[in-house]
Amino acid sequence: MKPLALTMGDPAGIGGELTLRAWLALRQTGPVFVALDDPGRLDYTAQKLRLAVPVRAVTDIAEAASVFSQSLPVLPTRLPVMPTAGQPDKANANAIVDSIKQATFLALAGDASGIVTNPINKAALYKAGFTYPGHTELLAALSGVPGQQVMMLASPLLRVVPVTVHASLRDSIATLTTDRIVTVCRTTEQALRRDFGIVSPRLAVAGLNPHAGEQGALGIEEITLIKPAIDELRADGFEVSGPWPPDTMFTAKARACYDVAICMYHDQALIPLKTLDIDHGVNLTLGLPIIRTSPDHGTAFDIAGMGIAEATSLVAAIELAGALAARRGA
Amino acid sequence: MKPLALTMGDPAGIGGELTLRAWLALRQTGPVFVALDDPGRLDYTAQKLRLAVPVRAVTDIAEAASVFSQSLPVLPTRLPVMPTAGQPDKANANAIVDSIKQATFLALAGDASGIVTNPINKAALYKAGFTYPGHTELLAALSGVPGQQVMMLASPLLRVVPVTVHASLRDSIATLTTDRIVTVCRTTEQALRRDFGIVSPRLAVAGLNPHAGEQGALGIEEITLIKPAIDELRADGFEVSGPWPPDTMFTAKARACYDVAICMYHDQALIPLKTLDIDHGVNLTLGLPIIRTSPDHGTAFDIAGMGIAEATSLVAAIELAGALAARRGA
Repeated sequence: MKPLALTMGDPAGIGGELTLRAWLALRQTGPVFVALDDPGRLDYTAQKLRLAVPVRAVTDIAEAASVFSQSLPVLPTRLPVMPTAGQPDKANANAIVDSIKQATFLALAGDASGIVTNPINKAALYKAGFTYPGHTELLAALSGVPGQQVMMLASPLLRVVPVTVHASLRDSIATLTTDRIVTVCRTTEQALRRDFGIVSPRLAVAGLNPHAGEQGALGIEEITLIKPAIDELRADGFEVSGPWPPDTMFTAKARACYDVAICMYHDQALIPLKTLDIDHGVNLTLGLPIIRTSPDHGTAFDIAGMGIAEATSLVAAIELAGALAARRGA
Repeated sequence: MKPLALTMGDPAGIGGELTLRAWLALRQTGPVFVALDDPGRLDYTAQKLRLAVPVRAVTDIAEAASVFSQSLPVLPTRLPVMPTAGQPDKANANAIVDSIKQATFLALAGDASGIVTNPINKAALYKAGFTYPGHTELLAALSGVPGQQVMMLASPLLRVVPVTVHASLRDSIATLTTDRIVTVCRTTEQALRRDFGIVSPRLAVAGLNPHAGEQGALGIEEITLIKPAIDELRADGFEVSGPWPPDTMFTAKARACYDVAICMYHDQALIPLKTLDIDHGVNLTLGLPIIRTSPDHGTAFDIAGMGIAEATSLVAAIELAGALAARRGA
């Protein structure tokens, strides 16, 4: 299998130390990855935090694979300014984005089997002229499928896909449509079959309102938007259940009935996922031609450089990307 | 301690069999309770399900206490029609409501130390002219404090209080006010001190929007409604944190920081509670002059009479009511 490409993320955040720790965790077992980062700053971080990680600049991804068991391979993305932990610097914004672009292009070209992204800070990038709402939109645009991205969060206990994501709760309700629910379900079903190896994926669609609206008494979106989406998908042969009452659909007994929960808004998906398992959640972007995962946390500027950040989620993200890539035969 | 009064609930639901099982679970240990039910139908249910429960009609609550260890004491509320499992009958509606009224009056008079209510079916009661939105509103009216009721769900892992409850998500957002948040927090704080014995209750107030609105980028209610409520409560000496990002406030680490989560809508409260522990959730009504708990499930008409309903939640409700009453010295 080709190596995975791991981006730098914001170098003022915890990304660098997580990359070092992930290599320590995975050097024996794989999956093999190459960091698209500044070798000097990684080496400095390793020294400072007393992590025994030999950082090795490589010239191409094939070399990365051959050195991985002995050292952390890095395809250099030079930073113009040495980062200060916790203080994002817009002078480094272009390098952050370059790392993402390079990783994406390696994966699109088939030289990397997928990409894993360290956290970025949107506010810092906006100041440097970045115009995408976030990471995912940039990746979709770079991959030639703008607007097709679908976010999935996966942990060992639960997979969730929010239909609406980064908007106020009010706007999330206002922008919910039958078409969007159907599209998200189709993308999710395809990914579960192709990348997760689930032959007949079972999709559980959540209601929007308490008790899934109680036949209209507590809200009408189940009747006007959600049920029609379920009917359309069923007519196309999908195995879809719902609309489920949101509060009882994440119990162990309910989770045994489906492979993914399709949720109507951000917190309906993320509350149960993070409540059940905060450490092993991985963010996946479905609907791209390439495999992409990322840890389920942010840059954590408040603890960057202290050596206390846990790499559990990044390691889970690399492992999941590796498993998906193996299934695709990448 | 005076006995607790346990209502009948809808006799076509699982209430009867749960009452019998609760007595089997609690006869040795207590807390002592008396059922306000039809002794004949309880006896019939016990025979049919082969539950070894001697049902005993008593004439007053003092007699109930003396017989509890040998038999299930029942203050008779006669049903005009023998119930059929799974088929609510409006001819029994008045008896269902009478059981609730009698229990409430016993508690208000100090003869019962609190009440525990079996589930009712609102649709069935509406057909018979019942005009309250639900159980809780009836209890508040009977207790002379209409509109003061606050719903809490408590499990061994988490306590939650939704500020808005049985309304569509859209309406829940529309009706959220600073005043309502403040009132709910005050009632909750008082109950935690008086009934739960927590000297300085720590309240965690949730945001409404993803990431608690990200300083307005993902919604403004945190700024316009929630923060002002927190400020007002803090000025009055309350220990209040928030607005918390909803998706990370129910992890084990976060839960260690507070005694109760004040939630902005039904599913924000009930998703984490039921996901963490579906079996031991108890519904409490705060803001009444009496103690009232109920199991965290409905009439379950679909499995009524089959003998498969679990009494775990009703037992937890009775035990919690007993513990709260003991603390009040009732």
